[in-house]
Amino acid sequence: MNDSTARLTGPVRVVGAGLLGASIGLGLRAHGVDVILSDASPANLNLAIDYGAGRAPRPDDAPALVVVCVPPDLTASVVAAELAAFPNATVTDVASVKVAPLTELEASGADTSRYVGGHPLAGRERGGAISARADLFIGRPWVVCTRPDLSRRHTGLVESLVLDLGAAPVEMTTVGHDASVALVSHVPQLVSTLMAKRLVGSSEQAIALAGQGVRDVTRVAASDPELWVQILGSNAPSVVQILRAYRDDLDTVIGVLDDPTAPGARRSLAEELAAGNAGVARIPGKHGQDRRFAQLVVLVDDRPGELARLFAEIGEAGVNLEDLRLEHSPGAQIGLAEISVLPEVVQRLSDELAERGWRIAG
Amino acid sequence: MNDSTARLTGPVRVVGAGLLGASIGLGLRAHGVDVILSDASPANLNLAIDYGAGRAPRPDDAPALVVVCVPPDLTASVVAAELAAFPNATVTDVASVKVAPLTELEASGADTSRYVGGHPLAGRERGGAISARADLFIGRPWVVCTRPDLSRRHTGLVESLVLDLGAAPVEMTTVGHDASVALVSHVPQLVSTLMAKRLVGSSEQAIALAGQGVRDVTRVAASDPELWVQILGSNAPSVVQILRAYRDDLDTVIGVLDDPTAPGARRSLAEELAAGNAGVARIPGKHGQDRRFAQLVVLVDDRPGELARLFAEIGEAGVNLEDLRLEHSPGAQIGLAEISVLPEVVQRLSDELAERGWRIAG
Repeated sequence: MNDSTARLTGPVRVVGAGLLGASIGLGLRAHGVDVILSDASPANLNLAIDYGAGRAPRPDDAPALVVVCVPPDLTASVVAAELAAFPNATVTDVASVKVAPLTELEASGADTSRYVGGHPLAGRERGGAISARADLFIGRPWVVCTRPDLSRRHTGLVESLVLDLGAAPVEMTTVGHDASVALVSHVPQLVSTLMAKRLVGSSEQAIALAGQGVRDVTRVAASDPELWVQILGSNAPSVVQILRAYRDDLDTVIGVLDDPTAPGARRSLAEELAAGNAGVARIPGKHGQDRRFAQLVVLVDDRPGELARLFAEIGEAGVNLEDLRLEHSPGAQIGLAEISVLPEVVQRLSDELAERGWRIAG
Repeated sequence: MNDSTARLTGPVRVVGAGLLGASIGLGLRAHGVDVILSDASPANLNLAIDYGAGRAPRPDDAPALVVVCVPPDLTASVVAAELAAFPNATVTDVASVKVAPLTELEASGADTSRYVGGHPLAGRERGGAISARADLFIGRPWVVCTRPDLSRRHTGLVESLVLDLGAAPVEMTTVGHDASVALVSHVPQLVSTLMAKRLVGSSEQAIALAGQGVRDVTRVAASDPELWVQILGSNAPSVVQILRAYRDDLDTVIGVLDDPTAPGARRSLAEELAAGNAGVARIPGKHGQDRRFAQLVVLVDDRPGELARLFAEIGEAGVNLEDLRLEHSPGAQIGLAEISVLPEVVQRLSDELAERGWRIAG
């Protein structure tokens, strides 16, 4: 990221009024930007307009920036059409793969000197304008793809859009982007999907023992198959490369477990497990891996008002809650609230809560 | 589970004063049961006694029940020793594999007619008596292994222990247990570990794009390698069988992505993704998959007291919070609280919170 004199003044044209397009529209409208919405479906378009995400196009529109928010496999053709229709506009997109659309665009003879690939790392499980929200991108990374031939005027304009929506621009090459999302998004999706598939047809008895581990591993397996067929198909070379390395390790583990008492077997297994420890430790952020915060587990009775009282008393102690996980088993009369706070206040908070009668469980 | 006339009167002898043993001790002591603690390490033993998990053994101890809480690969030999030392006692254990210890016990000539395999599905990331807590088992399933030759007197006594600790006894065969935990615990562990291993040596740029998906998939990869070498080694046949099926599916996906434009390729991929959807839908419980609850997303300013105010007002509305996830990006001035409540109250709660000035984001 570097500073830029580009300012987003508008109008901004958003093509595709689904979750991302409508959220961009809502976010820009909140800043008073003139947003022109377009969608192949008149019903979708009118819904997004009703939600306040922008206005219908007019024949004399001359947008400075066009944001293409259509499914990955339509992205290149829609970007090409927009580049042709608005010969002075910078055109960007939000597709979660970046090499394939650029290759397709270059092959089509489009004026790619005004195209800046983009990818906001944001989304929701539910799609459509109906799920859109102005704050969808707040605090999220948003990749802006740089190319040596690309003028800063165009990338700067896209970064202004990103900043106006509260997101953090992250500059990457097109190839660097696809390799990165293959690793942190596309392969985890497949790993999760294939694990979840093993649960099909399993016994009720086994499912009854499912705990937080298998829940976490399989959560993203609930994602939309149609979208993911497009994403994975468009980023196949990067994804396959990582999957092959994954399969090699899997073969090692299968070999070890075929004869777990063979010399060296336990050591091989321990090395795989230790490498997993090392890998997960690289991820910054929340939920178990976040060493910036200290955790406190408090028992909370399962009735209205109890959590409120807990949070009120944390607030009264002047402590800011950094993260929170709630856990309670079906039918249990008590829940566990795992509270993350800055390490320097955890002891004081623990003491204050204990004084107020809370049961601290760890 | 069926009713039983067995009553847990004590004394109960707990062998191994680590996390599970000391937690069992604390839970039983809270009910006034006489708990005899034993550990190969005098330091561990004294620590657990200091924590109030029980007392030191005496020469005339005659426990009705012995609970062996040692690592999986020591379980059979310690159970055999306890069966021999206390010829009238029922002996159970907490190892997370059940076939291997039973096979080893039978081969040793021990009196297995008094041995009941057990496995509480509970644990914490941190180990040792120092992390023990009396409520560790509350609401958790605890497998009690049945065998045709086993008297109800013995299984009933173990089920009394389980119930006294607030856990839910789940009867299974030894083989059924190992197949079940292979599917919902051991294979997910490996799938997560191998994914996390891919992150070792990856670019900072890629790691910076890591979102909740890869965090969830890799969370359990932070588990203790030494313990998991034992667990996986002891349950190798069940684990390998599932891993082979997983690898077959992985090979299919790799084949498809090697040539994603081949006829039928997208359909194969869509079928894998849809099967993942079907698998994850089988898991009951929280976080995304729980269709028993409706979700509401509320924007919360990132400062002390704001969450407290939110929860207080949810309580004032008379609504019980079923689950909660908090999310905020580093540096963002705002967080998102995803609230799960019973579907019949979600609209009313949304209206009431909106009236009180909360911004509802979805």
